[in-house]
Amino acid sequence: MNRREFNLHLLAAVPAIALPAQQSQLRVKGQRVNQHLTELAQFGKTPEGGTHRVAYSDADLQAREYTMKLMREAKLEVSIDAAGNLVGRRVGSDASRKPLMIGSHIDSVPAGGSYDGQVGSMGAIEVAQTLAENNVRLRHPLEVVVFQNEEGGTIGSAALARPLTEKDLSIVTNSKKTIREGIRFIGGDPDKLASVVRKKGDLAGYVELHIEQGGLLHQEKINIGVVEGIVGVNWWEVTIDGFANHAGTTPMNQRKDALLAAAKYIEAVNRVVTSVPGRQVGTVGKIQAFPGAFNIVPGKVATSLGLRDLDAAKVEMLYEKIQAEVRQIEASTGTKFAFQKVTSSLPAPTDARFRRAIDEAAKQLGFTTKLLPSGAGHDAQEIAHICPIGMIFIPSRDGISHSPREFSTPEDITNGANVLLHTLLKIDAMNL
Amino acid sequence: MNRREFNLHLLAAVPAIALPAQQSQLRVKGQRVNQHLTELAQFGKTPEGGTHRVAYSDADLQAREYTMKLMREAKLEVSIDAAGNLVGRRVGSDASRKPLMIGSHIDSVPAGGSYDGQVGSMGAIEVAQTLAENNVRLRHPLEVVVFQNEEGGTIGSAALARPLTEKDLSIVTNSKKTIREGIRFIGGDPDKLASVVRKKGDLAGYVELHIEQGGLLHQEKINIGVVEGIVGVNWWEVTIDGFANHAGTTPMNQRKDALLAAAKYIEAVNRVVTSVPGRQVGTVGKIQAFPGAFNIVPGKVATSLGLRDLDAAKVEMLYEKIQAEVRQIEASTGTKFAFQKVTSSLPAPTDARFRRAIDEAAKQLGFTTKLLPSGAGHDAQEIAHICPIGMIFIPSRDGISHSPREFSTPEDITNGANVLLHTLLKIDAMNL
Repeated sequence: MNRREFNLHLLAAVPAIALPAQQSQLRVKGQRVNQHLTELAQFGKTPEGGTHRVAYSDADLQAREYTMKLMREAKLEVSIDAAGNLVGRRVGSDASRKPLMIGSHIDSVPAGGSYDGQVGSMGAIEVAQTLAENNVRLRHPLEVVVFQNEEGGTIGSAALARPLTEKDLSIVTNSKKTIREGIRFIGGDPDKLASVVRKKGDLAGYVELHIEQGGLLHQEKINIGVVEGIVGVNWWEVTIDGFANHAGTTPMNQRKDALLAAAKYIEAVNRVVTSVPGRQVGTVGKIQAFPGAFNIVPGKVATSLGLRDLDAAKVEMLYEKIQAEVRQIEASTGTKFAFQKVTSSLPAPTDARFRRAIDEAAKQLGFTTKLLPSGAGHDAQEIAHICPIGMIFIPSRDGISHSPREFSTPEDITNGANVLLHTLLKIDAMNL
Repeated sequence: MNRREFNLHLLAAVPAIALPAQQSQLRVKGQRVNQHLTELAQFGKTPEGGTHRVAYSDADLQAREYTMKLMREAKLEVSIDAAGNLVGRRVGSDASRKPLMIGSHIDSVPAGGSYDGQVGSMGAIEVAQTLAENNVRLRHPLEVVVFQNEEGGTIGSAALARPLTEKDLSIVTNSKKTIREGIRFIGGDPDKLASVVRKKGDLAGYVELHIEQGGLLHQEKINIGVVEGIVGVNWWEVTIDGFANHAGTTPMNQRKDALLAAAKYIEAVNRVVTSVPGRQVGTVGKIQAFPGAFNIVPGKVATSLGLRDLDAAKVEMLYEKIQAEVRQIEASTGTKFAFQKVTSSLPAPTDARFRRAIDEAAKQLGFTTKLLPSGAGHDAQEIAHICPIGMIFIPSRDGISHSPREFSTPEDITNGANVLLHTLLKIDAMNL
């Protein structure tokens, strides 16, 4: 083991270095960050009080202009990278160190809420502004990034982790523009994407503040979530073939009912996923029966399978158990199942030192904390390919997200920004 | 008990009266009835070798012209009643008796087969022609009827059982015409429908020859099916309400998954229906999940329930058992079910004396027989409101129906027509 590794071990083993008294008193301006969030919400505001601001829409363009203004007020050097991400930089005191990055996104799902990604983006800018106003310069260079098109597949952050392919660039998005056209529309340059790709180690670390989008923190009245990692997401299209027949004249014991098989499959997925301890989730979200008439035994069903967990081996194991159940269902119903993999992402664990920094920062601020996984995907999962990551959650009321009813309290938003600030300071003190 | 009732009891208790030797040798011309079926199949013939001849289409009109020609060749006095049914009459030797009616339909489902209804219609005309050629006059008047629009809801036969309502006449059919327009198109008079309604007792009896549309006779290699009755058909639309939520961030034990509830419901329907001895059928044919995205826990499901049996009380009992299961499913999944009745028809049992006549006729012709219910609806279920009914089934290859692949052998078709002939003769000898 060399000296650097030894130092790392020390850092991991003992509480983080206590910050100078002045820095430990630093606080963001809660009223300001909430004000910014309210102003941001005007771009793409819906009658239901939510946000419809899909990537590459006019509302997205306007919101980005507003955001760049805030970044400049936070004394960041602002630019748009070739992938279309908004990047605000501030030099550190130690030029030999790699940048620390904080940020999130501001694009929304169609008919979405005003907090998803937006809290983290406004919170990150507020942290930078607080540091600048108090003349606190970090050792590491600071990058505040608002990634483009997170909702359409973490596109802007993926562009940092790997070169976007022709297939990626040809995807047609909710704005009706392709990714390529969208990047151009927002001021990027799809022909220069190689210039934004970062190699492992090009960043020292990344921390993202975000709403939980689930209900655990709210239910348990916990202030801050310390994210263990972002689950791997796995999705299959499933088709089931039986034999369509007259519902009146086909005896029950002569049927090859694809919908009965589907019913047994859906129940089996739920049973398998809940039979193993842990926080994995399994979902069947879609289904269609054919021919789909009340008087015809369904001969075909199209459905789906979604499995998510922090542990990729567990997902593999659950899938195998489901397959074993499916073999039995095929035999008992006379049907045939086919599974087609659609998407698969590896879990992205957060860094243990970053988790400790978040937890300590929160507790020192007087907040309660809880360790939990992120069941939703985030830009952090892409940046995890480049450097250690951390994620901070604040409560989502009733766990509602991707809806105009999405809501977090101004107090929780302020709390989250303060935790982000102090986490950043602690991480900045580490030798990464 | 009066003398007539006593005679009826006698008739029911002892084998049917043996027919004069000459009559027992009567046979239809098998080649002719199959030839007629082939010629009929030209009207609305599809490339797949099936029949697309929906009621009130041009193909229907042409097929009816052809059919009336055959009826005239069979020495029947042909007319179109106000409801649009083709009626071929032949007087009987005893004017005090009410008519015996035989027949079926010739309209098809969209993209259907060439045997459903068509075998019974051509068979009935062949029976009439055989009687005429052999100078056999029945005691009862004979009516050979080809009912209009059986596939669209046994419309032509219903018009005999009850006055069609404004609502009935406004239904838009597969031909795009309303029932009213359709009746006019085929030569009926929708303003004179009262004239076709028959009171109970206006007919002495009705016998219908038909393909089984199920696979039992074919599988068990039985020649003739003696129908016990036409099952009551009951159909409900079912909606299930849960709560839509993020599939990634909502823990398994916090879901109100409407599709999981639907799965348990579908499995329960199958279990309840197969747990009671008998030949009842229960089917869930349709399903749709909302929002129906792979990453959202379904908050709502629209599905269905169909129950059929010869015993209306059994259907009621099965429905109650399913409701009891549903209450448990609601509790365990946190969802709410709603059942909306869409259609309901009472079972139509056949007459015991007619069943015996069919069975004896078949056995005397050297055929094997089997007692079985009709799981599909037929014109006979409407005429059952007016007089005793009987139904004769011939095998359907592989139980396939409502498909270009529908098929019965020429030999089975000939057998069916011969059974219809001799059943009619036996019934004609009864005092009904």
